[in-house]
Amino acid sequence: MVELATLSGHFIQPFFGRPDVAVEIKADQSPVTAADRGAEEIMRGLIHKRFPGHGIVGEEFGSERPDAEFVWVLDPIDGTKSFVAGVPLFGTLIGLLHEGQPVLGCIHQPILGQLLIGDNHTTTLNRKPVRTRSVAGIEAATVLTSDPAVVSRMPACRGFTGVMERARVARSWGDCYGYLLLATGKADVMYDPLMHLWDIAALVPVVRGAGGVITDAKGGPAYPADSILASANAGLHAEVLKALAA
Amino acid sequence: MVELATLSGHFIQPFFGRPDVAVEIKADQSPVTAADRGAEEIMRGLIHKRFPGHGIVGEEFGSERPDAEFVWVLDPIDGTKSFVAGVPLFGTLIGLLHEGQPVLGCIHQPILGQLLIGDNHTTTLNRKPVRTRSVAGIEAATVLTSDPAVVSRMPACRGFTGVMERARVARSWGDCYGYLLLATGKADVMYDPLMHLWDIAALVPVVRGAGGVITDAKGGPAYPADSILASANAGLHAEVLKALAA
Repeated sequence: MVELATLSGHFIQPFFGRPDVAVEIKADQSPVTAADRGAEEIMRGLIHKRFPGHGIVGEEFGSERPDAEFVWVLDPIDGTKSFVAGVPLFGTLIGLLHEGQPVLGCIHQPILGQLLIGDNHTTTLNRKPVRTRSVAGIEAATVLTSDPAVVSRMPACRGFTGVMERARVARSWGDCYGYLLLATGKADVMYDPLMHLWDIAALVPVVRGAGGVITDAKGGPAYPADSILASANAGLHAEVLKALAA
Repeated sequence: MVELATLSGHFIQPFFGRPDVAVEIKADQSPVTAADRGAEEIMRGLIHKRFPGHGIVGEEFGSERPDAEFVWVLDPIDGTKSFVAGVPLFGTLIGLLHEGQPVLGCIHQPILGQLLIGDNHTTTLNRKPVRTRSVAGIEAATVLTSDPAVVSRMPACRGFTGVMERARVARSWGDCYGYLLLATGKADVMYDPLMHLWDIAALVPVVRGAGGVITDAKGGPAYPADSILASANAGLHAEVLKALAA
C-alpha cells in the first residue's frame, strides 16, 4: 500500500497547480484529468505484477475480478474539483477488501506529504499512530461536509444544516481530506450524502483504526453504502444520526 | 511588503500542524494562538524600524496612528480555524492604506509558498502576473464562501444559498485563500457576509489588480465595509449582487 501511494503520488504531483491541465467532464458530471487516469494505471500495473490473482475496482477503469478473495479499490484522485482548483484538499484512496469487506485503507495527500494508513485496529499518519479526539457534543465539534450546495439542495440533508449551524466550526474541507482530519483528531464529524464504493472502501479501516465510528447516513453498515457519516466517537455519532433523522 | 510576508511566514511555519499549539478564544469568539500574536509583533517591529511615521492597525494589537498618511493593516493569520485544524487554507494579510484607501495588498500562504501582491493595477503570484478568468455566469462558476453555517443562518445570505446551488462548484475554501483562488483564476466568486477592516484592506488591491471586481455585499464601496463580494468579472458580479438582493 505504501508503494502504491508513493508511486501514484509521484505521478500526480507535477500536475498540481498547472494552469494547462485539461479537465474532461464525465457522464456523471464529475471531472477527470490525465493525472487521475495515469495514477490509476500505475497502481493497476503494480497490483497486476505483485498480486496477479487479486481483483481491482477503480473509479476510472472499472472492475477486474471483483469477486476475488482480495480486491483493491482505487480512487486515484478523490476531490478532483479541489485538485483542479489548486487546492491541496484532495487525495488518493486505496482500499483492500477481503471477502468483500474493507480490511486495509489509505488516504494519501501527495502535496502536503500526509500518508494515512489504517487496518480497522490501528491508524498511522506517516507511520506514527493517530487517534480521533474526544469532544463533548455537536456544540463543541468541528463538522465537515464535501459540498455545501449538495447539503442545502437534498431534502435528506436538512438535518445536517442544523448540525452545521450548531457546531463550533463548520466547513466544507471535504472529500477524503475531511476523513484525514477526523482520523488525526483535527475534526469531529464528516458527512457525505452521496458516495461511491471506491470512495468508501479506504475510509472505513482508517476511521475505525483511529477510534472513530463510520456508518451510512442512517446508522447502517458503511460498506457497501451510498452515503457516509463518520464521527470521532460513538456519543457524537448518535447525536448527529438523531439530527439527520429528525 | 515582501519582507513583512517573509518574516511573518518564517515565524508561523513551525506552529502549523503542531498538536500542542494552545488556542485561546477571544471576546468575539474567534480563536487566537501564539503564532497570530508573534507574527503581528514581528511585522509591527519591522514597520516601526523602517517607517516610524506610518500608522498600524492590526487584528491582535489594535491601532497606532490610524490617521497617518500611510497606514499598514495587518491580519497575521486570517483563517485561524483552518490554521488550528492543520488545513493550509489560511494566510497572512498585509494591506497598505494611503489617505484611508487601500493601495497595496498581500495575501501570503506560507505553507504552500504562495505570495500574492496587488496594487489595484497589477497582481503577481510569486512575482508572475495573474488574472481572474472569464466565466459566462453563475452556472459555470466556482463559488466560495468562508463559513457555510453563517450563510445558512443569516437571513441576509439567503440569496447566496441559491447562488451556491446553481453554481458548477460550491465550496467553503474560505478566508483569504478564497480571494487568492479568485485572483489567480481558479475560482470565480467569493462572498463573506461578515468582515473586519483588517480582513479587507489587503484584498482590495489584490482582487482589482488581477482584473476582478470587489464591493460590499450590496454593491457599495469595499473599503470600509462589513461584508465583501468579489467576482472574476463585472457581469458575474452583477448577477450575484442581483441574487443576493432578491
